[in-house]
Amino acid sequence: MTAERHDGRAPDETREVRITRNWLDHAEGSVLVEFGRTRVLCAASFTEGVPRWLKGKGTGWVTAEYAMLPRATNTRSDRESVKGRIGGRTHEISRLIGRSLRAVIDTKALGENTIVLDCDVLQADGGTRTAAITGAYVALADAIAYARAKGLIAKNAQPLTGSVAAVSVGVVGGRPVLDLDYPEDSTAETDMNVVMTGEGTFIEVQGTAEGAPFDRDLLGALLDLATKGCADLTTRQQAALAEGAVA
Amino acid sequence: MTAERHDGRAPDETREVRITRNWLDHAEGSVLVEFGRTRVLCAASFTEGVPRWLKGKGTGWVTAEYAMLPRATNTRSDRESVKGRIGGRTHEISRLIGRSLRAVIDTKALGENTIVLDCDVLQADGGTRTAAITGAYVALADAIAYARAKGLIAKNAQPLTGSVAAVSVGVVGGRPVLDLDYPEDSTAETDMNVVMTGEGTFIEVQGTAEGAPFDRDLLGALLDLATKGCADLTTRQQAALAEGAVA
Amino acid sequence: MTAERHDGRAPDETREVRITRNWLDHAEGSVLVEFGRTRVLCAASFTEGVPRWLKGKGTGWVTAEYAMLPRATNTRSDRESVKGRIGGRTHEISRLIGRSLRAVIDTKALGENTIVLDCDVLQADGGTRTAAITGAYVALADAIAYARAKGLIAKNAQPLTGSVAAVSVGVVGGRPVLDLDYPEDSTAETDMNVVMTGEGTFIEVQGTAEGAPFDRDLLGALLDLATKGCADLTTRQQAALAEGAVA
Amino acid sequence: MTAERHDGRAPDETREVRITRNWLDHAEGSVLVEFGRTRVLCAASFTEGVPRWLKGKGTGWVTAEYAMLPRATNTRSDRESVKGRIGGRTHEISRLIGRSLRAVIDTKALGENTIVLDCDVLQADGGTRTAAITGAYVALADAIAYARAKGLIAKNAQPLTGSVAAVSVGVVGGRPVLDLDYPEDSTAETDMNVVMTGEGTFIEVQGTAEGAPFDRDLLGALLDLATKGCADLTTRQQAALAEGAVA
Amino acid sequence: MTAERHDGRAPDETREVRITRNWLDHAEGSVLVEFGRTRVLCAASFTEGVPRWLKGKGTGWVTAEYAMLPRATNTRSDRESVKGRIGGRTHEISRLIGRSLRAVIDTKALGENTIVLDCDVLQADGGTRTAAITGAYVALADAIAYARAKGLIAKNAQPLTGSVAAVSVGVVGGRPVLDLDYPEDSTAETDMNVVMTGEGTFIEVQGTAEGAPFDRDLLGALLDLATKGCADLTTRQQAALAEGAVA
Amino acid sequence: MTAERHDGRAPDETREVRITRNWLDHAEGSVLVEFGRTRVLCAASFTEGVPRWLKGKGTGWVTAEYAMLPRATNTRSDRESVKGRIGGRTHEISRLIGRSLRAVIDTKALGENTIVLDCDVLQADGGTRTAAITGAYVALADAIAYARAKGLIAKNAQPLTGSVAAVSVGVVGGRPVLDLDYPEDSTAETDMNVVMTGEGTFIEVQGTAEGAPFDRDLLGALLDLATKGCADLTTRQQAALAEGAVA
Repeated sequence: MTAERHDGRAPDETREVRITRNWLDHAEGSVLVEFGRTRVLCAASFTEGVPRWLKGKGTGWVTAEYAMLPRATNTRSDRESVKGRIGGRTHEISRLIGRSLRAVIDTKALGENTIVLDCDVLQADGGTRTAAITGAYVALADAIAYARAKGLIAKNAQPLTGSVAAVSVGVVGGRPVLDLDYPEDSTAETDMNVVMTGEGTFIEVQGTAEGAPFDRDLLGALLDLATKGCADLTTRQQAALAEGAVA
Repeated sequence: MTAERHDGRAPDETREVRITRNWLDHAEGSVLVEFGRTRVLCAASFTEGVPRWLKGKGTGWVTAEYAMLPRATNTRSDRESVKGRIGGRTHEISRLIGRSLRAVIDTKALGENTIVLDCDVLQADGGTRTAAITGAYVALADAIAYARAKGLIAKNAQPLTGSVAAVSVGVVGGRPVLDLDYPEDSTAETDMNVVMTGEGTFIEVQGTAEGAPFDRDLLGALLDLATKGCADLTTRQQAALAEGAVA
Repeated sequence: MTAERHDGRAPDETREVRITRNWLDHAEGSVLVEFGRTRVLCAASFTEGVPRWLKGKGTGWVTAEYAMLPRATNTRSDRESVKGRIGGRTHEISRLIGRSLRAVIDTKALGENTIVLDCDVLQADGGTRTAAITGAYVALADAIAYARAKGLIAKNAQPLTGSVAAVSVGVVGGRPVLDLDYPEDSTAETDMNVVMTGEGTFIEVQGTAEGAPFDRDLLGALLDLATKGCADLTTRQQAALAEGAVA
Repeated sequence: MTAERHDGRAPDETREVRITRNWLDHAEGSVLVEFGRTRVLCAASFTEGVPRWLKGKGTGWVTAEYAMLPRATNTRSDRESVKGRIGGRTHEISRLIGRSLRAVIDTKALGENTIVLDCDVLQADGGTRTAAITGAYVALADAIAYARAKGLIAKNAQPLTGSVAAVSVGVVGGRPVLDLDYPEDSTAETDMNVVMTGEGTFIEVQGTAEGAPFDRDLLGALLDLATKGCADLTTRQQAALAEGAVA
Repeated sequence: MTAERHDGRAPDETREVRITRNWLDHAEGSVLVEFGRTRVLCAASFTEGVPRWLKGKGTGWVTAEYAMLPRATNTRSDRESVKGRIGGRTHEISRLIGRSLRAVIDTKALGENTIVLDCDVLQADGGTRTAAITGAYVALADAIAYARAKGLIAKNAQPLTGSVAAVSVGVVGGRPVLDLDYPEDSTAETDMNVVMTGEGTFIEVQGTAEGAPFDRDLLGALLDLATKGCADLTTRQQAALAEGAVA
Repeated sequence: MTAERHDGRAPDETREVRITRNWLDHAEGSVLVEFGRTRVLCAASFTEGVPRWLKGKGTGWVTAEYAMLPRATNTRSDRESVKGRIGGRTHEISRLIGRSLRAVIDTKALGENTIVLDCDVLQADGGTRTAAITGAYVALADAIAYARAKGLIAKNAQPLTGSVAAVSVGVVGGRPVLDLDYPEDSTAETDMNVVMTGEGTFIEVQGTAEGAPFDRDLLGALLDLATKGCADLTTRQQAALAEGAVA
């Protein structure tokens, strides 16, 4: 239990997190987010109008699509476009990201506008979905700032009701740890992804027993770690957003 | 807070649960499970052999497919076979059911055999995924008993390491309640699906803030309710399985 | 030629037929129809409006979709939704059911409304398409009664111009027999599906030589049997419909 | 009832039928068959080996695929390859052609070889499926002669146990007529496709009431016409096959 | 270098070219074009209206779809409709044909009308795409003449601004040759398809080194041959169009 | 004709070209290539074994897949994985890249190994396919060096027979220019993509008249520009490859 993590981190320590804003020239908001060697490109596209089923209701829409480049992983995987269908894992993560971001969106304040968050994993080393959510929030904030600056939404509209960050926790070698990388993730007995607001409340909790089922105490310990991790990530997001106006 | 639930149930009360075994003549195990008006047909198909990626490893496989009949719901929805693609929700639930059942399976003891659980929703009134897991466990147990009786697995093999049941909990009208039906589910502020073993440990916890994010106390209250609900369902499963040998 | 059928029926005898109305809570008409061990759930969905190509013509539309649950049969078959395409047999039977029902529909009297008949085979033991047609007619009648009661169609409108029933006939062991079950169907030399009105006229005749081609006399004998069988089924339908008003 | 058919034919008269063998250079058998303005290209491809599910059983396989060029019809229809799925009608007709040809094939005598019949409608004017069957038989006979000449099947093997032809009959303007063209077909009250052997027995009978249901007498009259028509087509086929050896 | 081509042609000689107009009864323009044994059916469908993205702009649209019958080639290939997706080669050639024809179309003069060119290869022996372009031009001209005659476009409108023909050139056995057939094409070191106007200017040049890369001199020699070949084909097209009015 | 290009470049000047090797940790070769604002990630995946149709022939295989992230462009485009099919343009470019690289590969020397080049456009500003080819060559060279270092191919094997680079040329505002960016590309009258070896010979020439057809002189001028551009790119590639061993 006292053994170090394979990369020397403390149990409650995230990997090095980098958030590079405006990584793309075209997108209304874009972020290259890195959790260690995991690298996700988050692009926020702001468009006027909403899907047909929302028309005329005066509310906006935020949605997300997650995908992985074929060689993001250690061995190449086939493209979903070539296979002609999107896999269950892709669907599931796309839905999670969209749901998480909508939890901090006031769709009335957004007006009849749509923001799509494309989260493309350029390199995968565990935690791609939590990195995607954490980065996508920053791209989303930039897209909203852009829309306000361009007069696409009202000057005083506040579509963002809070911030959102996500982190994975799990039990590795019998010990609860924060922000698992791929070697840890592939041997974890329990695996949990937690999405939280900047204020420390829960948006989504998804815990899975990969090995033995877990009890209430362990669940509590994991939630403690996740709360600490999300707070750290929130600090990072705020620092990144403080660095300057949208290009 | 003292208002009754719309159908008169106590906050910690499940709907009437019925588990009818051997509903089909062909399947190695089959259950019609009903949580109130939600009605799911669970069929377990036992086949010798495993998918290609498992061949020669001496371990078996358990997987699940969830689907809904077009008129299971209040308004007819298009068939996924006609649309030519499976939706994200269907994928996600199929994966959840398979993962939950594998948590109580010793794949070594199963030998190189595969069991597929087909969970088809005949009528939907909330909680279809939790009903499916709860019913599928019974069908799975019957299929394993069948295989043992037929000598397809060893007489003393114990592929089942425990039992599994699932229930939904949520916050409706500001109050945590157990086993939401559709009218409750569609107005819930927080929605959580919990999968537990018969021994009261967690296999899967999936909580989502539909409205305001939730805090640690509320999470605790919901887990308490779910623990109580899963224990009730476990009792039901045991009663159903005690009723006689496989047809 | 004097050998009994494997289940003891006379050559001109159908299996036990059960028609359970209102099997579903949501559908405007629904029937669980059983021809022996063959079990088909028929749901009629009434919706206002018609497909685009019929708009503004003042006529309604009736169509059908047939499908089979994966474990309806003795060995599990893959879902068409998973395969991403509907097979030829499924298409063919769906078209047959729709055509058969439209033969007793006055689309003008239906007004610009659509009724979709979903016929899902829960268990297959031969004759699924004929059971589906026979059950779907009853569900259709209930959906029309519902629409009239709700004022969705005129009180005096008579969209139904007659009743329709269907049965299979074939040559098994050299002898013409009525309503083949799976063991008979799989060894039949000639196989014919016949759809008739309650008045004894033909809507559809589909005969196929599985073994040796058949001559005019044999065709006559098979049509005699089918006429008898459809008359029996018509009596069953009338009895079922007489049992009470739509729920 | 004494009115002439719109093109002056007698009620029991087929359109002008032309069968041009060896229309293609590559195929082992090929026929351009014309029923009046309906023009179908039938190509028989002989290949050694059988589909996986038949391997090692010592029997061959004959199957068919039917399709229509986009501008075969009066208004252009979208390609099924572009739509990404094959329609129900296409499936149904492909299956009918394959079944009809297999009725005159001794698969044991064919050995483990496969013959695929591609029936592509170059121009449609009613009766495309019956023209396809009639032409495909001749292409099939040529492919078998080719295989025998090349020693791909035994010199004395007789895979063909008979000949097959098909024709449509229907009720137009109250009168039973033979071999309907498109203007007749689109106004027919009853429509029947009949596939027969050269010896005058039935392989397939498919009758549909498009308008009023039909009675037993009318069915008899239509079968008489079809019997006459198939006999005429058989004569044509024999004449075409007598014209010379395979190129 | 002095060896004859395998079919005795001179290096700068095309195969025998035949252009049969009005091969179909329904299409507004149709041509069966033959380059030796290569046989392509080109059908031009004129329809009023344009795709949605062009509506209200006052301009028309010309597009093309290329396809091959399964037995056009020496061994049968699977249908793209059965495979459920169009291959890269098919897409690429369809796009090339459409682009080539649009190069001689004044879309303003066409008005808000669409012409689709379906080019279906009935038999393939090399050069199918160049035969398709050459034949499609004639079908296009006929469809435009038809539209003018019917008053669908203005009497004095000139949507055609020139003519277009295409030919392949390549290096076979070390020698540049014109209009390769399949045996030549499959052994060519360099392969080039050239699309030119009747006035001798280039619309499209697509050259590929199949073996060794080629230098500027060889490129020049190939373009000389192609220029000669396209001029010959233009003469053929003009002769075909001079033969009479549209049927 | 003397007007400057919109970004101040000389007519025969490429944009700033950057080639960053080893941009990914997992791939056997990887390059981020930038032509101005166009940014393509090229990953080379080396795997032992070949596709089934090449097995046992002692030769290897090199292929490529091209794709664009949804927000690579100025307005978001739908994912091909979501649409369920790959568009014609994607297919065409993937095929071009694969063909171009195979032109400098000795598949015998590669042995029975496969290299897949994934070229994902992260940002598009014209010339994505030429940037992809230019970058993919460097990734390919690195993957081969990796395989040699790991002993996966023989120490003295020389699978690379040369280098390959590609550039676009076109006529903008009446003047031939090199390496068009998006604003130039979208207004070009003629557009040509040229793929050349490091020795200055042609692998592929694809020229298209977007506006008026072009004559032989203009074609010559464009080929001169392309020759100059490819030589410049070759120098860049050599410099990048000289910078150090594979990580």
